[in-house]
Amino acid sequence: MKKLINAPETVLAESLDGFAAAHADIVTLGDERKFVRRAALKPGKVALISGGGSGHEPLHAGFVGLGMLDAACPGQVFTSPTPDQMIAAAEAVDTGAGVLFIVKNYEGDVMNFDMAAEMAGRDIAKVTTDDDVAVETSTYSTGRRGVAGTMIVEKIVGAAAEEGRDLAALAALGERVNSRTRSMGVALTSCTVPAVGKPTFDIGEDEMEMGVGIHGEPGRRRVKLASADAIADEMVAAIAGDLGGTGDALLLVNGFGGTPSMELYVMYHSARERLERRGIRVRRSLVGSYVTSLDMAGCSLTLMLLDAEIQRLWDAPVHTSALRWGV
Amino acid sequence: MKKLINAPETVLAESLDGFAAAHADIVTLGDERKFVRRAALKPGKVALISGGGSGHEPLHAGFVGLGMLDAACPGQVFTSPTPDQMIAAAEAVDTGAGVLFIVKNYEGDVMNFDMAAEMAGRDIAKVTTDDDVAVETSTYSTGRRGVAGTMIVEKIVGAAAEEGRDLAALAALGERVNSRTRSMGVALTSCTVPAVGKPTFDIGEDEMEMGVGIHGEPGRRRVKLASADAIADEMVAAIAGDLGGTGDALLLVNGFGGTPSMELYVMYHSARERLERRGIRVRRSLVGSYVTSLDMAGCSLTLMLLDAEIQRLWDAPVHTSALRWGV
Repeated sequence: MKKLINAPETVLAESLDGFAAAHADIVTLGDERKFVRRAALKPGKVALISGGGSGHEPLHAGFVGLGMLDAACPGQVFTSPTPDQMIAAAEAVDTGAGVLFIVKNYEGDVMNFDMAAEMAGRDIAKVTTDDDVAVETSTYSTGRRGVAGTMIVEKIVGAAAEEGRDLAALAALGERVNSRTRSMGVALTSCTVPAVGKPTFDIGEDEMEMGVGIHGEPGRRRVKLASADAIADEMVAAIAGDLGGTGDALLLVNGFGGTPSMELYVMYHSARERLERRGIRVRRSLVGSYVTSLDMAGCSLTLMLLDAEIQRLWDAPVHTSALRWGV
Repeated sequence: MKKLINAPETVLAESLDGFAAAHADIVTLGDERKFVRRAALKPGKVALISGGGSGHEPLHAGFVGLGMLDAACPGQVFTSPTPDQMIAAAEAVDTGAGVLFIVKNYEGDVMNFDMAAEMAGRDIAKVTTDDDVAVETSTYSTGRRGVAGTMIVEKIVGAAAEEGRDLAALAALGERVNSRTRSMGVALTSCTVPAVGKPTFDIGEDEMEMGVGIHGEPGRRRVKLASADAIADEMVAAIAGDLGGTGDALLLVNGFGGTPSMELYVMYHSARERLERRGIRVRRSLVGSYVTSLDMAGCSLTLMLLDAEIQRLWDAPVHTSALRWGV
């Protein structure tokens, strides 16, 4: 295992301490590193809290800040955070208007966020994301997995929360955004979990995993390495076919952590061309490593159909460590 | 070779086309893809042009936009752009106040930018960056190499150009920033140039290259893989020792393309602690993959001593695809 770390058991603490120090203008770290929260809260605003296993950075802590999340609860690598983390985060950031949990659809996450919601003694609603069309159930999920589309839900609901919408309206908006969003990924290499010390899965020098999950879970099938165009053919057909509809869209080409920018723009170029042939006009774009799988090489495509409201909320100011504009 | 590409000979064109399409609000692509330029120029402002071999993205095209570069000339992968590219770029973005070339210190780059300056028939000045303390001369350079510190020069001189400073003042400022900036890198794996199809160098499973260059050139020595703290010990001693002085500083922890965010924050945490022990207070931070080497795993540390003017210019608004704030 080749990683820039001191020891597997200290990676999470040291990276969180580094993150909080680097972005002290935006975030503070909760006691016992249970959560990362906005340094400055907005009284009367519904608080947005997300979280999940670590190893997907910048998701979620990188999206804490104005116009997006109020807190993020980091679990150990690829391990759900525990309910006491979400309860402590809710206690820290709820200013009286209630709390919205944004949860990726994995059994551990759903169970622990639900438990926290029951135990917290607060007004809490939940949006569960399940944008991954690759498989219908998976190693850690019943139903579709929540992947890169989650950050789009966080951005848009975050903007609406800044405008003062109430908890029920935000939950409904989150569901609506999730329902207009589809993703699929491909892996060229495995990731390596620090505490395990060896790759999560074996893959040949001429193979790729089509439909891979963000923990390296199996996708649709193992196939021979193909060209960017051939990969885009399959992924665009899968996401746009499943979503249905045409019109204006946001396209996110997301790197898994070990893939350089140049390759992501090759994939963007190929995917955009295929979407436009289907009558989908790419009006908003995001290309980068936002929802990662440690050091895995590969990428995912996420497509979201825009409407006037969603586009306006996407464009609204955001000030987090990983996404920033208008501020 | 596992890459998300169609063919080695089309990677650059497709990634540039993708880049220009994704960021059409900020940039446009020049004829024959000779340069990437700001979509909206500011008349009367000195034009800043950089460039170099591709494979270091987002450097330089990702830094084209308000508050930073006016144009960037992308060469083939790890190959200098040709003088006709810089001449065409200068023609496109010079609004009459002259042109400043910002050039990383590699022989091919320096020669081709100099040739362009001579042939362009315009008022052109040049800043050459050489922030890499690892080696005194290298495979492609006489004197120190220009590496991640280049983006800091581009940001600060770019902000001063927006304020209307003249060409001579900007060149002097660029030299001043470069003289306050030091970097050093470490590689855990090699990069793979698409047209070559195999790793640039061989490296054992338990080895790292200390002081590596951004093309995978040799550094100071090949050593056994060490902890993040031990790596930070050596790199901080090298850059802070060479720079001398204490006070307020900017710390950039830069990933080389194949290293995930979590590891960069571990390195940041470790480096910052060591700097502060030396009396260097980290007041500004940047952690991410900004000056890359294709898919190489590893990182560099860059340290720049701040003063009131430089800090103000660093904080000034910037609106590029890879760096954005205040806008």
